[in-house]
Amino acid sequence: MAHKTKYTLAKLAELLDAKLTGDGQCEITGLATLKNAKPGELSFLSNPSYADQLKSCQASAILIDEKFLDSCPGNKLVTSIPYVAFAKATALFNQSPLPSIGVHESASVDTSVVLGKNVSIGANAVLAANVIIGNDVEIGAGCYIGEGANLSDGCKLHGNVTLYHRVILGRNVEIHSASVIGADGFGFAFDGSKSVKIHQLGTVRIGDNVEIGACTTIDRGALDDTEIGNGVKIDNQVQIAHNCKIGEYTIICGCAGIAGSVTIGKYCIMGGGSGAVGHINIVDKVQVSAMTLVSQSIPEPGMYSTGTIQAKTSQWKRNAIRFQQLDSIAKRLKEIENSTDK
Amino acid sequence: MAHKTKYTLAKLAELLDAKLTGDGQCEITGLATLKNAKPGELSFLSNPSYADQLKSCQASAILIDEKFLDSCPGNKLVTSIPYVAFAKATALFNQSPLPSIGVHESASVDTSVVLGKNVSIGANAVLAANVIIGNDVEIGAGCYIGEGANLSDGCKLHGNVTLYHRVILGRNVEIHSASVIGADGFGFAFDGSKSVKIHQLGTVRIGDNVEIGACTTIDRGALDDTEIGNGVKIDNQVQIAHNCKIGEYTIICGCAGIAGSVTIGKYCIMGGGSGAVGHINIVDKVQVSAMTLVSQSIPEPGMYSTGTIQAKTSQWKRNAIRFQQLDSIAKRLKEIENSTDK
Amino acid sequence: MAHKTKYTLAKLAELLDAKLTGDGQCEITGLATLKNAKPGELSFLSNPSYADQLKSCQASAILIDEKFLDSCPGNKLVTSIPYVAFAKATALFNQSPLPSIGVHESASVDTSVVLGKNVSIGANAVLAANVIIGNDVEIGAGCYIGEGANLSDGCKLHGNVTLYHRVILGRNVEIHSASVIGADGFGFAFDGSKSVKIHQLGTVRIGDNVEIGACTTIDRGALDDTEIGNGVKIDNQVQIAHNCKIGEYTIICGCAGIAGSVTIGKYCIMGGGSGAVGHINIVDKVQVSAMTLVSQSIPEPGMYSTGTIQAKTSQWKRNAIRFQQLDSIAKRLKEIENSTDK
Repeated sequence: MAHKTKYTLAKLAELLDAKLTGDGQCEITGLATLKNAKPGELSFLSNPSYADQLKSCQASAILIDEKFLDSCPGNKLVTSIPYVAFAKATALFNQSPLPSIGVHESASVDTSVVLGKNVSIGANAVLAANVIIGNDVEIGAGCYIGEGANLSDGCKLHGNVTLYHRVILGRNVEIHSASVIGADGFGFAFDGSKSVKIHQLGTVRIGDNVEIGACTTIDRGALDDTEIGNGVKIDNQVQIAHNCKIGEYTIICGCAGIAGSVTIGKYCIMGGGSGAVGHINIVDKVQVSAMTLVSQSIPEPGMYSTGTIQAKTSQWKRNAIRFQQLDSIAKRLKEIENSTDK
Repeated sequence: MAHKTKYTLAKLAELLDAKLTGDGQCEITGLATLKNAKPGELSFLSNPSYADQLKSCQASAILIDEKFLDSCPGNKLVTSIPYVAFAKATALFNQSPLPSIGVHESASVDTSVVLGKNVSIGANAVLAANVIIGNDVEIGAGCYIGEGANLSDGCKLHGNVTLYHRVILGRNVEIHSASVIGADGFGFAFDGSKSVKIHQLGTVRIGDNVEIGACTTIDRGALDDTEIGNGVKIDNQVQIAHNCKIGEYTIICGCAGIAGSVTIGKYCIMGGGSGAVGHINIVDKVQVSAMTLVSQSIPEPGMYSTGTIQAKTSQWKRNAIRFQQLDSIAKRLKEIENSTDK
Repeated sequence: MAHKTKYTLAKLAELLDAKLTGDGQCEITGLATLKNAKPGELSFLSNPSYADQLKSCQASAILIDEKFLDSCPGNKLVTSIPYVAFAKATALFNQSPLPSIGVHESASVDTSVVLGKNVSIGANAVLAANVIIGNDVEIGAGCYIGEGANLSDGCKLHGNVTLYHRVILGRNVEIHSASVIGADGFGFAFDGSKSVKIHQLGTVRIGDNVEIGACTTIDRGALDDTEIGNGVKIDNQVQIAHNCKIGEYTIICGCAGIAGSVTIGKYCIMGGGSGAVGHINIVDKVQVSAMTLVSQSIPEPGMYSTGTIQAKTSQWKRNAIRFQQLDSIAKRLKEIENSTDK
């Protein structure tokens, strides 16, 4: 279905499971925001605060919740969660290149590799001994797949991804370029004068429908495996250290860093640039705001933060210097309260 | 001009557009700081606080502002901004390897690719269908250039860079190794039980004279494009999410993370490890200090900060615990003030 | 010795330099934590707080300090630092793939390259002119080694590593995938309207027994070299800017970012996500906690921190707003104290 760039509204209603109000023969050739849409395009209203843009919107049709029906002139595709319908529509209008099925002549595939049906192996990709590749798997140019790695059906690796030996990917895992799955966890024992390497004997197990961004690293476990649950979405530049367990459907935003042996529950959101120190537990449905450091386990769902709020540096500095006196300030205040009480 | 390693001072004065005071036949074979310079080397005074090193400096000549002329014995190249003249001199003494013109026999170049004049395509580089390469472009070993990407004249990609499909580079863009331009923006719609991928239909447009460090990621836009202005300089390990607009000549230091749909003005500096949350605007000439989180739009030029100042952990902890009581402290103080007023 | 997966306890005692108490003929086939160990496995007690797990542990033997001898039933390997003995045991049970000695037919090795004995060059690796490779060096698939780089005996580069020209690695340096050593430092001189590049004429010198994680970047120096001391261990996603000097045996955890010209002493630990601003000095034996920014030189050993402690966002916000009033709070408190004193 992808790579077709024109649909009638009637067809879109069917494909997006929406109710059509208006001209079913109207042709849609693309997607756009309410603000930028031109005739021929389909837009959507997700955030109600944009509802005032409906009237001036040039789109030929709009994905919309039933309750905004009356505020919206023209063609409509009515659906319960317009943003989800919009997401599905992006798949229909997606024009990313289709893979060439087959093994590129410049790829280096060990004779012991097992290849599924309908597989695409890009130029200069390298598959080491005993790799197992499922059906409909796409491996981009320049990828390196280490010995004994196992990629289930429908996986897609963009160019220059590295999987170390014995890494296991579930179905439909997508990994973006320059990411590295299964490098050694960072483990050393200090003998009094130097760090002795703890070889990392575990691996990484990734569930189904996981997406991993670019330049992201997930380390192999020391003794047990590092585990990423089904449906987890991980952005770019994320570091997940050895022996972490990330619960199903959790979202980890760009530049987050999760130290070793951290357990994160299901349906959590780790904000951009957030961090977690090692060996802590975070329960289900926790949200951590951007650049927050989680330094203790979180036993209760909710949203958590650290840090201060931006200010002009001159003003910030005066306050930051006072932070260094905060314990003293608190004690002096207590003293005054005590003396006043008397 | 590069790769010559010896110049007379007279020639350097000409090349650097500086005024010579001293022996024009003196030969210069390298560059060094005031402190480390040896005879035969050229040094520079940029920061006035190093002026006291002028007298003991062993350099054969010094790039200097007119106002320090009298404090400086020996040969001088007088120029209005010595640091800029020094920068130009580094180009003259640069000995990085010159590219081999032509397409390496191991590169995989699709038959539909258009190559300009004087192009160098490194070993095992892969150029997909419909890529357009301008004149004097250098593509390092192991790079992957996705379908329909367009590289203007003078671009230089170091080894193992990845450009996704349809990415557009202006003239003289330099990108360091393991960086990824055009990977999917991190966009999902939550349907109540799982994240539905929003395919990223835009691309990335990069202006002229942009430099991008190593292991940096710039994501393609969801509907519109991500845009990087002319003359922007981006360091290593930076993440720029989908639909950001980065204004001309802005500098983004290492490890900074910019969330989606952020607009940053011209001539800004985002400090190392700084962050910006999504959908905010930062005007021209804003500086953000290291590891500062910008969580609200910045409507005024100036320097901004968040965080606290380093302290011994034991002392820091006492204050950080009091931070948790800060609202209560402020209220109790107000109460005392009120009671005192009476 | 690696890749054998079964040892008698007597043999292990010999190999790990431990004193055997129990059945020397007992066969050990793997390693596990006290909690997860099954019969046939060797475990270890390092952290005394786990001592209560000794009695129920299913392991066939335990690496243990003499002082816990009586709390531990069954076979024991007694050693002064059990964690170090455990680290050594991981090397014995390590099953990472062994390299194929020789140059893969798809690798591109310049005719001027000097190769030591017992070298493994992976598929599609590229070695530029005048590279020097010591004995027992392993270069993974897809690596790019720039002109004149020098790798001493025993170095191991995993797949897709990039070394720029003239980078120098000491003995037994291990570098994980997608890391980039020797890219240009981030140096520009501002000429009033644009940034003029300062070409980076130095290189990177890495000592012996250094390990570098995945997606880590270490930039080449501007004039002098960037230097990493012997025995330094660097995790994933770390950025080390130009002209840093990192002292011997220092540990840099994941996502840390060290700005230009920073000197860090010996036996330091930079926590995960920590940062250091440019041109500062940190003495030996300093520990910096996770996500701490070091913005001033540290002249004394000890542990240092910045930031605040996690709280529910609603509560955090109330306190963070008060932080903006902290200087005023301090002044008002002082005023009350003054008036009370009267």
